[in-house]
Amino acid sequence: MELIEAVLAGERLALARLLTQVENDTPLGRRTQAALFAHTGQAHLVGVTGAPGTGKSSLVNQLARLFRRPPPPDGAAPPKVAIVAVDPSSPFTGGALLGDRVRMRDLAGDSGIFIRSMAARGALGGLARATSALVQVFDAAGYEIILIETVGAGQNEVEIAGLAHTTLVVEAPGMGDDIQAIKAGILEIADILVINKADRPGLENTERSLRAMLELGRPKIQPEEKDAAGGPGWTPPVLSTIATTGSGVEEVYQAILRHAEYLRQSGEWQKRDRIHLQVELEALLQETLVARWRSRVPQETFRAMLDRVFERQISPLNAVSELAQFDVNYVKD
Amino acid sequence: MELIEAVLAGERLALARLLTQVENDTPLGRRTQAALFAHTGQAHLVGVTGAPGTGKSSLVNQLARLFRRPPPPDGAAPPKVAIVAVDPSSPFTGGALLGDRVRMRDLAGDSGIFIRSMAARGALGGLARATSALVQVFDAAGYEIILIETVGAGQNEVEIAGLAHTTLVVEAPGMGDDIQAIKAGILEIADILVINKADRPGLENTERSLRAMLELGRPKIQPEEKDAAGGPGWTPPVLSTIATTGSGVEEVYQAILRHAEYLRQSGEWQKRDRIHLQVELEALLQETLVARWRSRVPQETFRAMLDRVFERQISPLNAVSELAQFDVNYVKD
Repeated sequence: MELIEAVLAGERLALARLLTQVENDTPLGRRTQAALFAHTGQAHLVGVTGAPGTGKSSLVNQLARLFRRPPPPDGAAPPKVAIVAVDPSSPFTGGALLGDRVRMRDLAGDSGIFIRSMAARGALGGLARATSALVQVFDAAGYEIILIETVGAGQNEVEIAGLAHTTLVVEAPGMGDDIQAIKAGILEIADILVINKADRPGLENTERSLRAMLELGRPKIQPEEKDAAGGPGWTPPVLSTIATTGSGVEEVYQAILRHAEYLRQSGEWQKRDRIHLQVELEALLQETLVARWRSRVPQETFRAMLDRVFERQISPLNAVSELAQFDVNYVKD
Repeated sequence: MELIEAVLAGERLALARLLTQVENDTPLGRRTQAALFAHTGQAHLVGVTGAPGTGKSSLVNQLARLFRRPPPPDGAAPPKVAIVAVDPSSPFTGGALLGDRVRMRDLAGDSGIFIRSMAARGALGGLARATSALVQVFDAAGYEIILIETVGAGQNEVEIAGLAHTTLVVEAPGMGDDIQAIKAGILEIADILVINKADRPGLENTERSLRAMLELGRPKIQPEEKDAAGGPGWTPPVLSTIATTGSGVEEVYQAILRHAEYLRQSGEWQKRDRIHLQVELEALLQETLVARWRSRVPQETFRAMLDRVFERQISPLNAVSELAQFDVNYVKD
């Protein structure tokens, strides 16, 4: 297939076309994605997540620049870098587009960087699925570093972080107490903690509370969470940056490289890859089973049952028990 | 069944017991919930959502108090009020419990108020499902006002807001530009906009930008979004409050009553109820189909396929096509 070859050969236009097909979940996109799958599994996926206003985008841009830094004279070529920005704003407002334009300006002129924004989908789990699909395309196209940026701290972000080998959680000083609850949830997925906007007041407080939460979490998490090689595991570093000036970003970059090294040596890399593929298989299977049910049971059957539920003649649980039977009793003509 | 009768009779202890059963999705919980379903459909479900730090909890507490205010001498008894606080923090940190304790102190001594916090579940869509189940129990138990409080602005919150008849979106002055993207998405679900902490600097800016976004959104939304009676629909008011002192909360309370009136007269109430039940049926159906597949296909079959995917011998899409066949070819002994 032409498109596949063009993408594998590194043609940007073909890549952009394929990404659109995959994001829109077209038959061509699905076919091509399946064919490219054999070429995946090479990239280092780095998730960057955190609350709005923490300056994730600037940090991601700076990191992309460091990965693309000219290598020493005897070195190999720098890795190709993809940025996938997952934006939960409505497509209607064009938030994703706007973000793209700002980035384009920052990183323009480097053909080794490819930036793609995507807006949240309506479907449950749709966003994580779609992100995973885009990441696979970049991986197959030879992008060795894939930075996945997500805004927020909800279920979606935790799922998307689940795609990554390395997850950065970005904070900023001076967040209210109310945000502590969210931090607690998201801290459990952090491999590297970054306090960005470190020139703002409140840095020491934020640092102290993050370290306290880490210490709280670790003793309970570690005993059963030894790495695949039985080693002591990875202790998330807490790093401070001012992404707008670049201050401290080099240390974050180095921590990412160290974490990649740790993942490879401990066997955690393969373990995480396997978990991620399992989650993807399960989500796809769920989607497939529902689609099959739909193709076998007429819309009117569902609607008639919904009427009965609406009239409180039958409970949702009992209604679904009945509906599921239609599928089983289906006989192919 | 004893438990059902006790709950219908308004016994708080029985209610608490049932809520735990339902939240843990036990067989007793499921059975009782199904039996109680015929008694649901009476409550006014009010969703309160917004970013962390906007003071949602204080606002919810104040609203609960207004609903419970002693009625005029000739009036009926005030409605029973349930508060369901959905807390995305990890169960590990006990965030939900902490919130409960603060609330208990605030609203203690009123037997017409029942407060229940729940922590986020790991399962996809699990949180919205579990919330819906709890709300149904409160509805059947005669709680006429159910305040559903969610933290954050992700997919989860939009789903949970989908349960409600009336959705309040709470903002606070002085949020950064970065948060605009999130606002845009969540504004589309708002029936009432509240700017809490109105004594903070930046009120005018926040108000102006909210109104601008509302105007931006409305012309595109309205043509296809006439209410069920073909009327002009509802224009979300933008109200300012200082929940800690109670200032402005009466106006929010009145807006909720007006919105309930609007929903009933326009036919929107029934329309929203129906949509909510449909979403619930679809989620349950999905869960049931997956459970059935699992019961028919041995774990080893799935694991062997996962191995092939992990080795890049087969793509996830093709793997799932094969896996789904096992279900179809299943023959009951």
